[in-house]
Amino acid sequence: MPNWITPDFGPRPQRPLFLCIISNSDTGKIPGLSAAGTSPALTDYTPGADAELVECNKIITMPELPEAPGGSPTPAIVTKAALNLTGIPSLFVASGLRMKPAVPYVELGGQAGNDIRKQSAIVDPQGLFERAESLGRKLAKLSDCVFIGESIAGGTTTALAVLRALGYSGNVSSSFASNPSELKGRVVKEAMARAGVTQGSLKDDPVTAVKELGDPMMPAAVGLMSGLKGCKVVLAGGTQMAAVLALGKAMGVEGDISIATTKYIMEDKTASFREIVESTGRPYYYADPGLENSKIPGVQIYAQGYVKEGVGMGGASLLAGLYGVTQKQLVEETDRVLMTVELPKK
Amino acid sequence: MPNWITPDFGPRPQRPLFLCIISNSDTGKIPGLSAAGTSPALTDYTPGADAELVECNKIITMPELPEAPGGSPTPAIVTKAALNLTGIPSLFVASGLRMKPAVPYVELGGQAGNDIRKQSAIVDPQGLFERAESLGRKLAKLSDCVFIGESIAGGTTTALAVLRALGYSGNVSSSFASNPSELKGRVVKEAMARAGVTQGSLKDDPVTAVKELGDPMMPAAVGLMSGLKGCKVVLAGGTQMAAVLALGKAMGVEGDISIATTKYIMEDKTASFREIVESTGRPYYYADPGLENSKIPGVQIYAQGYVKEGVGMGGASLLAGLYGVTQKQLVEETDRVLMTVELPKK
Repeated sequence: MPNWITPDFGPRPQRPLFLCIISNSDTGKIPGLSAAGTSPALTDYTPGADAELVECNKIITMPELPEAPGGSPTPAIVTKAALNLTGIPSLFVASGLRMKPAVPYVELGGQAGNDIRKQSAIVDPQGLFERAESLGRKLAKLSDCVFIGESIAGGTTTALAVLRALGYSGNVSSSFASNPSELKGRVVKEAMARAGVTQGSLKDDPVTAVKELGDPMMPAAVGLMSGLKGCKVVLAGGTQMAAVLALGKAMGVEGDISIATTKYIMEDKTASFREIVESTGRPYYYADPGLENSKIPGVQIYAQGYVKEGVGMGGASLLAGLYGVTQKQLVEETDRVLMTVELPKK
Repeated sequence: MPNWITPDFGPRPQRPLFLCIISNSDTGKIPGLSAAGTSPALTDYTPGADAELVECNKIITMPELPEAPGGSPTPAIVTKAALNLTGIPSLFVASGLRMKPAVPYVELGGQAGNDIRKQSAIVDPQGLFERAESLGRKLAKLSDCVFIGESIAGGTTTALAVLRALGYSGNVSSSFASNPSELKGRVVKEAMARAGVTQGSLKDDPVTAVKELGDPMMPAAVGLMSGLKGCKVVLAGGTQMAAVLALGKAMGVEGDISIATTKYIMEDKTASFREIVESTGRPYYYADPGLENSKIPGVQIYAQGYVKEGVGMGGASLLAGLYGVTQKQLVEETDRVLMTVELPKK
């Protein structure tokens, strides 16, 4: 095990599969909440563009590379680098996605999430859960270890709302270097008031927590976890995926389930990744992708807390480490991916 | 090997995967050409409904069970029975599909095929091929043996047109008991005249043959075959899939590729399955599902040449046989599937 992966993950899987759930939600369009896109109007396109970048190193359906307002590129570049270096297959899974990617993906259906301040988050979380579970059952027959990442703008805010409804007091992280925690708190408070939910009042009703306060990524992730019985499942993400672990616990989902993230999430003092995960009783792992050694300023500043996680970059980095990729190789390939990604002609 | 599978297929695969390509084409709406749907207007819904039946034993997006005008139910019931009895995972793959199923499926994009008498069949066969190839490369890392079936109305007519363009003189089969060969021949003649193609004139240009005279199932099937290198590939179908073999040969696609169909296709004197496949140099297998022993008249008459094949029923039956399922069990489960399938409320 390389020293940039903590702690020891155990043996390398035989037939790993990297899944990434892509979803849209109007909560992600609240100005100032998400750094997944340079403007709220573009956030709907970001998940599909992340899929395109990972699947063919090309942005097709979005006018530009997905990047944070500060100029940092999407974490999909790190995921793509890790998958390139290992040859591990990926599949994007659309759940409540408005803007579809122009690459092969699995469609679970469902509608994009609503602004949780204004109305219930999701129309049919049970349907998404069941379809994801059905997909998970199939994939469990083909793979021995499935990583599940996500790309959805505004996902940490819906994660915070769901965590509160389930009774967790920890905080969530942010794709901004400076976490807009106050704004998030305000949105969550408004949403909980609208839904008549108080701290912990839905701890025995996780489905309603997702339906009222979540987003379409969540039922898909929990459904996959549930369907992937007999297969090692590693959620790949930060506090959003920690909220999925919490949902899984509340729903009684069992199995060999853990979570993998980046060192940047572990170091985020505004968030409580470790506490939330420990409350769920599931193991966590984290990788240090070493991006301070990138030659590209927008990537270097990941190490200062910009972006931090997303598109399963922590889990993908960990997989790369398991396959013998060095931190140096991962950083160089990340830079190469970013320099060679094909963008739409202006 | 059970005696209802001919010839010996070899050892049972370790991690088989059953794929089924679902597509639409306006060629399938020419009255009298296809039995996949009781009326031309419903043919667009048939592939999605087949996916729903196999994935959840429920018809959701079509007002009725897909059936031939004579009342025979869709061959998806046999495929579903075989998959139920073996637990083999399935994935439907949409390629140029208008009406999407309400179950998880892989989306390859693309537009539905045009009426080949009137205009080029497909806009971008190369794009569909490349996306399918990319999906195939991933699946080859997870499965050791992939079966590929199809559900597209009018597919034998486009198959005939492509075979003629490639220089094959054999005939195609039909989902009707009485093959409307004359009508098919007329459609193909008109289409070839429109496209300026004569018998064999595109034998060195299979991409143009598909683009002008094919349907969106074909580039997806050839792309998957090409991407699935290192993995055993079994096309599951009749003369449509034989045309895909011919395309693969013309495009130089290599690998462990064969075709599996039903005894009903082998017995079809109006068609030349064996001759076409033998010209491609690939092995063929066939299963006798024994449907004359069904308790349901619409299923019994499969054995008299109604329906014959589709949704990979021959390949799925063969897989069931490899897994120790008896013909009797397959027939009983087929009847049970048909009696329990949930239909939309009128």
